Amino acid sequence: MQCVAGVVAQAVSRIKAQLLPQYPNVDDVIGLEHSYGCGVAIDAPDAVIPIRTLKHISLNPNFGGEVMVVSLGCEKLQPERLLPPGSFPITDERDASLGPDTVCLQAEHHVGLMSMLDDIVESARPHLARLNARRRQTIPASELVVGVQCGGSDAFSGVTANPAVGYCADLLVRAGATVMFSENTEVRDGVDQLTSRAASPEVAQAIVRELGWYDHYLERGRVDRSANTTPGNKAGGLSNIAEKAMGSIIKSGSSAISHVLAPGEKLRPDQRGLVYAATPASDFICGTLQLAAGMNLHVFTTGRGTPYGLAECPVIKVATRSDLARRWHDLMDVNAGKIADGEASIEATGWELFLLMLEVASGRKTWAEHWKLHNALVLFNPAPVT
Amino acid sequence: MQCVAGVVAQAVSRIKAQLLPQYPNVDDVIGLEHSYGCGVAIDAPDAVIPIRTLKHISLNPNFGGEVMVVSLGCEKLQPERLLPPGSFPITDERDASLGPDTVCLQAEHHVGLMSMLDDIVESARPHLARLNARRRQTIPASELVVGVQCGGSDAFSGVTANPAVGYCADLLVRAGATVMFSENTEVRDGVDQLTSRAASPEVAQAIVRELGWYDHYLERGRVDRSANTTPGNKAGGLSNIAEKAMGSIIKSGSSAISHVLAPGEKLRPDQRGLVYAATPASDFICGTLQLAAGMNLHVFTTGRGTPYGLAECPVIKVATRSDLARRWHDLMDVNAGKIADGEASIEATGWELFLLMLEVASGRKTWAEHWKLHNALVLFNPAPVT
Repeated sequence: MQCVAGVVAQAVSRIKAQLLPQYPNVDDVIGLEHSYGCGVAIDAPDAVIPIRTLKHISLNPNFGGEVMVVSLGCEKLQPERLLPPGSFPITDERDASLGPDTVCLQAEHHVGLMSMLDDIVESARPHLARLNARRRQTIPASELVVGVQCGGSDAFSGVTANPAVGYCADLLVRAGATVMFSENTEVRDGVDQLTSRAASPEVAQAIVRELGWYDHYLERGRVDRSANTTPGNKAGGLSNIAEKAMGSIIKSGSSAISHVLAPGEKLRPDQRGLVYAATPASDFICGTLQLAAGMNLHVFTTGRGTPYGLAECPVIKVATRSDLARRWHDLMDVNAGKIADGEASIEATGWELFLLMLEVASGRKTWAEHWKLHNALVLFNPAPVT
Repeated sequence: MQCVAGVVAQAVSRIKAQLLPQYPNVDDVIGLEHSYGCGVAIDAPDAVIPIRTLKHISLNPNFGGEVMVVSLGCEKLQPERLLPPGSFPITDERDASLGPDTVCLQAEHHVGLMSMLDDIVESARPHLARLNARRRQTIPASELVVGVQCGGSDAFSGVTANPAVGYCADLLVRAGATVMFSENTEVRDGVDQLTSRAASPEVAQAIVRELGWYDHYLERGRVDRSANTTPGNKAGGLSNIAEKAMGSIIKSGSSAISHVLAPGEKLRPDQRGLVYAATPASDFICGTLQLAAGMNLHVFTTGRGTPYGLAECPVIKVATRSDLARRWHDLMDVNAGKIADGEASIEATGWELFLLMLEVASGRKTWAEHWKLHNALVLFNPAPVT
């Protein structure tokens, strides 16, 4: 929560400087700050979305089940409400029925800031030790849960990067992996293209339900839909939203849509294949909700260029144009502009991306990881603040 | 905006490490990250609130008018919309009609991440040079714009810390200074105590208008009002919201309420005295909106304890209980618990706080500043995200 964020930031710095070098098999330690502790309508109907989002982010496999909670003590969103006993599978000597490992800053035994910092740092040790004992193992590609997203799109997005991602999505689904696509605002003007690909009537109904819920949410705020496309889209040559929708949807490839997730919901282990995770299109809210859904690898296509990166998950960035890939040579991981240049096919670029995904999942660093470019997680909270 | 946040964070680190030591009269350089660049309903009626909040934060006097904008390039909230030409008074050789000093990451001349970082760092130099030429001057206490807030309240808040802050608020108003109090959710159950102190019928109507707007906002989200008081309030002995409201309002002292600000509005130079800045009670949203309103010094009372701090403004923290002040000896700046102990009067504690404010305004560091405890700014966006 935000009250403790200043203290957590200093504790994380100390853990990184003092402890992390002792645990070479641990990649990083991340403080998941958020502002959903207090000052929110926590019992409003829509509050379920931010609360389950925070819970499910904690359960993202990229954290290896080793999460600790730093609580102020008086927050509305108490640790046992965020992560009720049993939220984590039992993986160690802790008793899962006790709930999350929690340091409470208001605890009576804390005297002064240093005792709070010491407590957090010491509590991190057993988590680091358990993580450090783990070794990289070869596992099948079917364990990948890839979230695809686009941002700063241009006229090339729908003809180079997004079709290559779509081809790769088909390869992933064929390999038994999971691919999530999202962005309600981008796909709603092409909803018939989604429902016609639903694997079952229930999936089609869920798509209609989620996009309907979202339309109602926008209406409550009297949204002028002309705000999408954005100035950048227009400058990039995207003339209207239907064109943008088709270009966006093509990222999902041609598989049947097997499942639909409401915002902040988490994939069940049996939910694989192509998934529509219904999220707003905001890059950061979409990425946050895909993380909550269980994404362990992220693909982001861009035409105008963005240095997007997350501390929580590797992000592979795909440029739609060779000019962008050339200028942003140390920020873009794949150049799909080769397709427009006639130098590579959609299929070849899709395969290139697929093979890069396997490498990144095996430890190769993306540019965003190399530079440690980290954007904030942004919660989707459709309920009021108070 | 959030797209550029990862790059800005690294640029700010470089500026602090490489440039700041050359400009000893400059206290700090701060990156004002936010997530209101894209993915927001920027033309919805309520979008005026987050947009003017961001604009007015840039104009906060604590930045000395030396603000630069890092733009991605394709964002919906373009720099010229955020800070239209003429937003800043002309204080140097720049032509104010040009709008803010802006580095655009998507600019054609940027090749690679380093050229973006170099551009931001070099652009900071003239700002730092102008700031460094300024010298601390003696100015009257009437220039203080103090934002008061409480968080993690307990049964002592309304009898120790808040009355002492109220007494100090009267001293400030008497000295010609400005005191802002806020927190719609905390005061609405005591609205008659506000309207009866309005300096004019227009002020009373503005109070009713703002709290009415806020009630409507909560109704849209179907808020269960029983969520306030919080678990921490109850554990601290605050039995109901009317009691909490009276304890909160007493922070404003006994002066007439001279002005009312809607969320994100900025004080005009002629608006002094006691001001009701109508904001949600969330500590971070309230602090952000008070910063936008022009706050240059912040007072925060707490009974349960919070390490609250802002990079943008000194925060003086006042403990309601001696036990808290003792345990959190290096986080609490004033112990109002002495009032309950019978060791100091409300008046004496109010004077202690007033004198501390003059010292802090003159350069003395608060505990939050000493430890560099910095919370995030959190925008109030009642409009939808997209």
